[in-house]
Amino acid sequence: MKTLKIPEATIIRLSVYSRYLTQLDKNGITTISSGEIADGVGGTPAQVRKDLAYFGEFGTRGVGYNVRDLNEQIIKILGLSNKWNVVIVGAGNLGSALTQYKGFLERGFNVVAVFDNDINKVGLRLSGIPIYPIARAEEIVKQERVQIGIIAVPAPYAQEVADTLVQAGVKAILNFAPRVISVPDDIELRNVDLAVNLEILTFNLGMNKK
Amino acid sequence: MKTLKIPEATIIRLSVYSRYLTQLDKNGITTISSGEIADGVGGTPAQVRKDLAYFGEFGTRGVGYNVRDLNEQIIKILGLSNKWNVVIVGAGNLGSALTQYKGFLERGFNVVAVFDNDINKVGLRLSGIPIYPIARAEEIVKQERVQIGIIAVPAPYAQEVADTLVQAGVKAILNFAPRVISVPDDIELRNVDLAVNLEILTFNLGMNKK
Repeated sequence: MKTLKIPEATIIRLSVYSRYLTQLDKNGITTISSGEIADGVGGTPAQVRKDLAYFGEFGTRGVGYNVRDLNEQIIKILGLSNKWNVVIVGAGNLGSALTQYKGFLERGFNVVAVFDNDINKVGLRLSGIPIYPIARAEEIVKQERVQIGIIAVPAPYAQEVADTLVQAGVKAILNFAPRVISVPDDIELRNVDLAVNLEILTFNLGMNKK
Repeated sequence: MKTLKIPEATIIRLSVYSRYLTQLDKNGITTISSGEIADGVGGTPAQVRKDLAYFGEFGTRGVGYNVRDLNEQIIKILGLSNKWNVVIVGAGNLGSALTQYKGFLERGFNVVAVFDNDINKVGLRLSGIPIYPIARAEEIVKQERVQIGIIAVPAPYAQEVADTLVQAGVKAILNFAPRVISVPDDIELRNVDLAVNLEILTFNLGMNKK
């Protein structure tokens, strides 16, 4: 693999291509061109080729890509050849929705535990997944070889939860709380702000009026 | 405003800058450099300047930006000077979480109604917001001048809900269902896939091992 800096937008698109290829594969489609991928996901053929070129040569000129092979290579690039064990902190509405989100398991993310400090929730299960007190984070993370923690608690608790997850041994954190948090340099962190998606829509609505 | 094609990544970063500036403004900070913005949000000064340059000249060389002025200009660019009325379809865990998500109101998005066809939910309220049957979508969208609809229903119902929202008169749709949906060309559509965020983390975890 080249050591080029890969734009995050490329990673996001690879993820989208892979979903589309999975769907095609299920429907029995075996070969596809960059133009057809672009049409399927709303992009340009040049963008598709450029995104893939970061990672080597795929497909055959004039023939296209083998759907299943290309998808397997993208899945490998994205680090999804192995399953990942994930814990979710917060068993409120958002945490519950994430625990039951089918899109995670489809992509190889296996939620193994939910943590919450509400004694009325501890001991219950969400779609079969047990809810533990946060005090057991380190034990569960080690036992289940968890590498990713998802934060779905109210903003004031987000930093404390992040510290606990890092201490417990996770390597990456996905933060849904609308609060900037900090983690050590060797921990991967991604903040999800759900309002950003609405702002892209309103920006586009504004542009289209001009 | 220039008619340049603005990269979506720029819009996403503007949204992040604006949140950071809002926080600084609350803390009484009045002036900031592109380097300080970059440090605050995890980017580079050159990127900050390039993102802003799409929209004109801001700040004073050698002095920096006025925090509040810059934020107001970004808010205007993002189309957030006005409030937007939003409806959410689906009163399950995800719909409930989104209805109560504080990050929306902070950015000017006002959830005015939730739709669900579960007769046990219709007539109830989520954080004070009424739940209506989807049959009333057109009436509520017109009455409340709703421009944005959020889809938070299971995947098999997503296309049907999108059609209903378009028929009801919304101009933009944010789709959380893990299913590709289609809408007329004059409707803004954004598909949110929550697993993508995890895939960026696993990609980065893979890169850092090399």
